[in-house]
Amino acid sequence: MSDLVLHNYYRSSTSYRVRIALEMKGLSYTYVPHHLRHGEHLEPAYLAVNPQGLVPALVLDDGTLLTQSLAIVEYLDEIAPEPPLLPKDALGRARVRMLAQMIACDIHPVNNLRVLTSLRTLFGAGDEDVVNWFRHWVNEGFQPLEKILASSPETGTFCHGDTPGLADICLAAQVTNNARFGVDMTPYPVMSRIHAACMALPAFQKAAPQNQIDAE
Amino acid sequence: MSDLVLHNYYRSSTSYRVRIALEMKGLSYTYVPHHLRHGEHLEPAYLAVNPQGLVPALVLDDGTLLTQSLAIVEYLDEIAPEPPLLPKDALGRARVRMLAQMIACDIHPVNNLRVLTSLRTLFGAGDEDVVNWFRHWVNEGFQPLEKILASSPETGTFCHGDTPGLADICLAAQVTNNARFGVDMTPYPVMSRIHAACMALPAFQKAAPQNQIDAE
Repeated sequence: MSDLVLHNYYRSSTSYRVRIALEMKGLSYTYVPHHLRHGEHLEPAYLAVNPQGLVPALVLDDGTLLTQSLAIVEYLDEIAPEPPLLPKDALGRARVRMLAQMIACDIHPVNNLRVLTSLRTLFGAGDEDVVNWFRHWVNEGFQPLEKILASSPETGTFCHGDTPGLADICLAAQVTNNARFGVDMTPYPVMSRIHAACMALPAFQKAAPQNQIDAE
Repeated sequence: MSDLVLHNYYRSSTSYRVRIALEMKGLSYTYVPHHLRHGEHLEPAYLAVNPQGLVPALVLDDGTLLTQSLAIVEYLDEIAPEPPLLPKDALGRARVRMLAQMIACDIHPVNNLRVLTSLRTLFGAGDEDVVNWFRHWVNEGFQPLEKILASSPETGTFCHGDTPGLADICLAAQVTNNARFGVDMTPYPVMSRIHAACMALPAFQKAAPQNQIDAE
């Protein structure tokens, strides 16, 4: 498994998700940075690897390309089952995938760099508009997420029980990303507590944006 | 399994995904419509069921709430394994989840009704702006998706081999939704062919927006 190549960007929260999973599984990989703000992901050499020109992308040792962070994390969980990132029961798996997708489908895509850039170029959005847009969609998603986590007996030290998994990976990456946009976490005590529990783990620290070779 | 309750909206493409899976699995369910354009999903009675106020939401017979269409479809696939919606091998599953998420994470969320409405209210976007925005993000996602499907030996009658699965569910729902925004499908012959193969199946027809009780 030493021939995994991860195309990514230190500050991309979807890249961060995959890095956490790789660290948790103890899988070594080659880190290939693509500076999104310099458009390096749109250069022909990278488009030949990944036609979508997005990060993260994981290239397996036989050259197979995998994209989409949740698909990659579930793949890693299947080929390297320990420690498990999803519960054993179908209902538990559904709950963890639901929590993960509340971030991965309802928050992150709308706040992606390319969408924020489009708001500027198409509608003349300024810095304040962009920050407000980002915060709005985070809060739209975090309010019900906090409510579900606070009221559910399945919530433990982490989103589902007392071991970290797929939902925690998404939560930690999103909360870390939020800091750049000054999102107030006061209304989210449960998520704040879970985020702190995640960041106390070596895998989440090693994978963190500021600890990558392309960090600025 | 006759006590499944699906909160949904005929025209919501994420609702359509779940309906297709329910039909493919032969699971009966109670259809509860929420008219998104009339704001019915934000009424207190529904927020008590689903704090996120989004559709689809599936309520199980014990009252458990499941949201997020991909999480729901994978749950249905686990409790009712036939016909399978994911391949048996880890790499095949990763490929199908990747294709599904290229639509579910990179296209649909950015073109959701609530996002389009925000473009109007926050930035004064008009009808043409909204249509262009929608088409732009579809094309951004469909170009690489078509390339991957056209070049991959795993592509068959459907996205992955000759039986329909999770990726086809997302593809069919997205292509159906595209029609309302006049997306030109000419550049996407493989996807058009797969969409036609899906729509020839009774499950995709029965679940289609125009065949629901709340269709207008």
